Amino acid sequence: MAKAVVLFSGGLDSTTVLAMSHAQGDELCALTFDYGQRHRREITSAERLARYYGVVEHKVLHLDLGQIGGSSLTANMPLPEGRDLGEMSHQIPSTYVPFRNSILLSLAVAYAEVAGADVILAGMNSLDYSGYPDCRPAYLDAFNQLVSLGSKACVEDGRQIVVRAPLLYWDKVRIVQEGMRLGVPYEQTWSCYRGEELACGVCDSCQLRLKGFREAGFHDPLPYRENIQR
Amino acid sequence: MAKAVVLFSGGLDSTTVLAMSHAQGDELCALTFDYGQRHRREITSAERLARYYGVVEHKVLHLDLGQIGGSSLTANMPLPEGRDLGEMSHQIPSTYVPFRNSILLSLAVAYAEVAGADVILAGMNSLDYSGYPDCRPAYLDAFNQLVSLGSKACVEDGRQIVVRAPLLYWDKVRIVQEGMRLGVPYEQTWSCYRGEELACGVCDSCQLRLKGFREAGFHDPLPYRENIQR
Repeated sequence: MAKAVVLFSGGLDSTTVLAMSHAQGDELCALTFDYGQRHRREITSAERLARYYGVVEHKVLHLDLGQIGGSSLTANMPLPEGRDLGEMSHQIPSTYVPFRNSILLSLAVAYAEVAGADVILAGMNSLDYSGYPDCRPAYLDAFNQLVSLGSKACVEDGRQIVVRAPLLYWDKVRIVQEGMRLGVPYEQTWSCYRGEELACGVCDSCQLRLKGFREAGFHDPLPYRENIQR
Repeated sequence: MAKAVVLFSGGLDSTTVLAMSHAQGDELCALTFDYGQRHRREITSAERLARYYGVVEHKVLHLDLGQIGGSSLTANMPLPEGRDLGEMSHQIPSTYVPFRNSILLSLAVAYAEVAGADVILAGMNSLDYSGYPDCRPAYLDAFNQLVSLGSKACVEDGRQIVVRAPLLYWDKVRIVQEGMRLGVPYEQTWSCYRGEELACGVCDSCQLRLKGFREAGFHDPLPYRENIQR
C-alpha cells in the first residue's frame, strides 16, 4: 500500500490504472489536466470516476496548452480519422501535443512532492499506442532519472518519487481484460478525441479502443455513432 | 546565428542571457511565465526588456503553480530573508517551487517545437545559486536526454533541440561584468522575490544580486529600500 498520484484523464487506460491501484488498496490522489483539449468532456468522466473510486483528492489543473498550439488536439487543425491501424504505428500523428507528457508528468511530480506521494501512476502504453515518442520505455527511464536529480523531495528529503506505467508493455486487449476483471465501469470513461455526444468510432483513439474490446471478446458499453462496427 | 527561445523572467540572469544571445545576432523568441509568483512585477520588466531587445515574439504563458503550492513564491508562506550567504549554499530554501524548472523547460521545449527553434537558453547557474537542485549540470544533462527521446521534433523530424545554460558555471560577479560590458539596462530588470515598489535588499535573490554588483565593482542601478548597503 502506497500513496499514489494517478495521472487520470478519464479514458480507458488511466481508468484501468486507477482501478488496479484501487484494488491494491493504495491511497489515491487523482490528477486531471484541463489543457484545452477539444475532448474536454473526458474531464467530466474523470470527475465522476474519481468519486466512484473514492480518491482522497482529485485535482484538476488548468493549463491551456492551446497557448502553444501545434496539435490537432488543442489547435484548430483537422483530426486524423479512418487511419489504418498499421499506419498509426509508424508515424507520429497530428494529435501529438508537443512534449505533453513531460509537461504533465513534471506537474505530477510537483503535486506528488506537495501531497507526500512517492508513486506516480501513468497509463501510457508502448504497444497499442499511436506512435507518441513520449510513451516509450526509454523515455520513462529518462524521466525518472530527471526526477531523482531535480526534485527536492528526492535530493534533500531522501524520498524516492518514481513514475510507474503499469500498462507500458500491455496491449489494449490485455488492458480491457484486466479492467473487465476488476469491474471498471467503462461506460463512464471517455476516449474519443472529438468531444461530441457520441464517440465517433473513427479517430485513432476510438479505433484502438474498439479493437481492444473486440479482440478481448467484450462489448464496449460506450455509446458510439450509428454504423460503427464494434 | 540560430533561432533561440530564451526562458526569460526579466531578472538579472535571464536578461544577461538575452543580451548575450542578441549580441551574437541570434533570432530570439522570449518565453515568460506568469505562474502565480508573488513578484509578478518581473513580468512587466520582461515585457519592457523584450521590446528593448527587439525579440521576434514574446510569449507570456499562464500557468498558475499556486494550484499546486508548496513554495513561498506561490503560496502564503513567509519568504526567507537576511540569510547568511553561506547558509544559502547548503539548504534548499522555501522559495523552491516544486519541480519548477522541469515544468518550465518542458513548456519551453513545446514552444520551441512549434516556433521552429532548436536552442533553448536558460539563465540557471550552479555557483551563486540558492541551492536549487534543478539548476545543476547533471540535472541539465538529464533534461536534454529527455528532450532527445520525447520530442517529436527530435525523434521524427531530425531536429536537435538543446537546452543551453551559458551561465551555468558563472558566478554573479562574472554575470554582472558581462552584462555591463554589453550595456544591459539593469535598472529595468527585477530580481526581488517581493513584488513591492522598491527591491527589499534582504531576500536571497536581492542579496545575491547586490553581492554580485559589489564584487564586480559596479553600482546596482535598481532602486532599493532605504538603508540597504550596496
